[in-house]
Amino acid sequence: MESVYEEALRMHEKYKGKVAVSPKVNVQNAEDLSLAYTPGVAQPCREIVKDRENVYKYTWKSNSVAVVTDGTAVLGLGDIGPEAALPVMEGKAILFKEFADIDAVPICLDTKDPKEIIDIVKKLAPTFGGINLEDISAPRCVEIERTLKKECNIPVFHDDQHGTAIVLSAALINALKVVKKDINDITVVVSGTGAAGSSIIHMIHDLGVKEIYGFNINGIVTKEDYDQYDFLTKEISEITNSEGKRMTMAEAMKEADVFIGVSAPGLVTKEMVASMKENPIVFPMANPEPEITYADAIEAGAAVVGTGRSDYPNQINNVLAFPGLFRGALDARAPQITESMKVAAAKGIASLIKDEELSKDYIIPRVFDPRVSKVVAKAVAIEAEK
Amino acid sequence: MESVYEEALRMHEKYKGKVAVSPKVNVQNAEDLSLAYTPGVAQPCREIVKDRENVYKYTWKSNSVAVVTDGTAVLGLGDIGPEAALPVMEGKAILFKEFADIDAVPICLDTKDPKEIIDIVKKLAPTFGGINLEDISAPRCVEIERTLKKECNIPVFHDDQHGTAIVLSAALINALKVVKKDINDITVVVSGTGAAGSSIIHMIHDLGVKEIYGFNINGIVTKEDYDQYDFLTKEISEITNSEGKRMTMAEAMKEADVFIGVSAPGLVTKEMVASMKENPIVFPMANPEPEITYADAIEAGAAVVGTGRSDYPNQINNVLAFPGLFRGALDARAPQITESMKVAAAKGIASLIKDEELSKDYIIPRVFDPRVSKVVAKAVAIEAEK
Repeated sequence: MESVYEEALRMHEKYKGKVAVSPKVNVQNAEDLSLAYTPGVAQPCREIVKDRENVYKYTWKSNSVAVVTDGTAVLGLGDIGPEAALPVMEGKAILFKEFADIDAVPICLDTKDPKEIIDIVKKLAPTFGGINLEDISAPRCVEIERTLKKECNIPVFHDDQHGTAIVLSAALINALKVVKKDINDITVVVSGTGAAGSSIIHMIHDLGVKEIYGFNINGIVTKEDYDQYDFLTKEISEITNSEGKRMTMAEAMKEADVFIGVSAPGLVTKEMVASMKENPIVFPMANPEPEITYADAIEAGAAVVGTGRSDYPNQINNVLAFPGLFRGALDARAPQITESMKVAAAKGIASLIKDEELSKDYIIPRVFDPRVSKVVAKAVAIEAEK
Repeated sequence: MESVYEEALRMHEKYKGKVAVSPKVNVQNAEDLSLAYTPGVAQPCREIVKDRENVYKYTWKSNSVAVVTDGTAVLGLGDIGPEAALPVMEGKAILFKEFADIDAVPICLDTKDPKEIIDIVKKLAPTFGGINLEDISAPRCVEIERTLKKECNIPVFHDDQHGTAIVLSAALINALKVVKKDINDITVVVSGTGAAGSSIIHMIHDLGVKEIYGFNINGIVTKEDYDQYDFLTKEISEITNSEGKRMTMAEAMKEADVFIGVSAPGLVTKEMVASMKENPIVFPMANPEPEITYADAIEAGAAVVGTGRSDYPNQINNVLAFPGLFRGALDARAPQITESMKVAAAKGIASLIKDEELSKDYIIPRVFDPRVSKVVAKAVAIEAEK
């Protein structure tokens, strides 16, 4: 049987690009041309000169997003450069269209300098209604996103950081209902404190989790080591490990109600899951191979398990968040995507599963549930308008 | 009756953007997702890492062009900024699609600094198969284009310079057949020595015109004034006005077989046309109001007249050139657009009118003649492969 890789390669070769630019108006005769191009086009131009906000009224800015990468952290492939990142950005553009009817343009930049990336994106901003940063390595991606959020007047979002955090938060909210625990009472272990992990830690902290232990390749994050950390880990050290404990992840798991993994395959054993508090919730999201397999986690006594994979229940997939999030931000013409808009998105996703439907195998809507992007868009737009 | 401006405004408001991004592959279930996005998409990425040229095989790079402006010289509107330029760039993107099936993306940059524009375009280049510069003021546009041509490995073309020059050259070739004059024997007056005018002068010089008089707002271009000129006019002074004459345009017209105008309305009188050599050819291309009206030029005895307008015979319109030119360059995967490719394009356009069809009212194919972009693409691709 042909593997998914062979089939995907053949498909990519056949289409030579997964997205096209298509006219919404026909230009088939002189009259069409005089409306869509000269001389008629001068009129919307003049109206935008009068009031720059009119650009939303007469151009695609109201519905377009640039999907920007430098190709430094693409999928599991690492720093593969802008050309090799293009198939992924095109794929992302398709998802924007299919899930939220947004016109997304792949933009792969031939520079890795954060200052340059910031500068280029700022200067591209007039053309687009939003900027989705993608597959830029940490901690650079955080610096780039934060600066752009401050300096652009359109929404800027780094999906690798916040997309996972939003969907994971939705899953956590519902998983806690299944096991009947209060978010204010739980202890959480997070394995991986990079772009996604740190955003998850911030978000579950904002949602009310009181004790979080963050682990990375150097072990537990603790305020005592503050000076050795990059700015991202410094921030994490301020809101985790309140007693400054020195312990292994295996030791921390004994205190934990929830495990969240955005790290590497095989870091969690069955014994570690078995040692967790009653009715443990386990989200091993390393992709495609999780920190512990779904089967092993269940066998070890996990009450709820969610992974990044589509072949097990409870798939934690960014596509549940970013299309609706941008749809809502564009619809509300939000100048940026705020923390409260992200929380609204998470709660919107979680809300789709009614209490009576909720079960250990169904805590999060499925990727192709057509309600998701609509609910997220609405929740985000309402929050934006506040 | 509603004016074209009112109707165009209404149309732009209705569509909110004249172009969309559309998927060429469906993503409607988990299997689709696994091919177009993760995990399958990793395979074309890996192939591009192995050999960067594979980006043409697996992505839209083989068929995409960025339409880049800084909004400094938009239509007749001048320096209106990047937002207000967007309707025009979207219009251009439609033309790329309708006439040559190219996926063109409007990019309006929030900077006027030539160095920055060059830098940004270079860093955008991995995403696109070609760069079409548009509506950037002269002489900056020439500096930007020439630097990018040297420093990018994809075709870079500034339509405002060379598009008009190519179509005008095609028209001139055929007009000379109508009046039975040899291009090596004629004298030409060119009114306007900016982006378009200087490119026209270079191109007709390359085609064999021996004597050209160039005029701008300061009068005739002459080598004597070399030191006062910008680099663009300096170049023009080297290939025009061989005897260094000081004269008015009215005086120069008496020596001229051909008048070419890319300047301003009303600069040419009936008397001036009447004073030209036998069977004068007159191309007053200022838009929308030409240097002399079609009717006046004919009345004054012009043998052939071509303007920028669609409501008279012989419309000189860039759309005859740029779509086929890029189609040919992309098909041949040309690393740049050379002088000889432009000449091939001009000759290709001219060749579409057979000798027996040729008349004073039909020297250039009509804008919607479906043969044009194909003939141009073929001529350009053949030239590129040489």
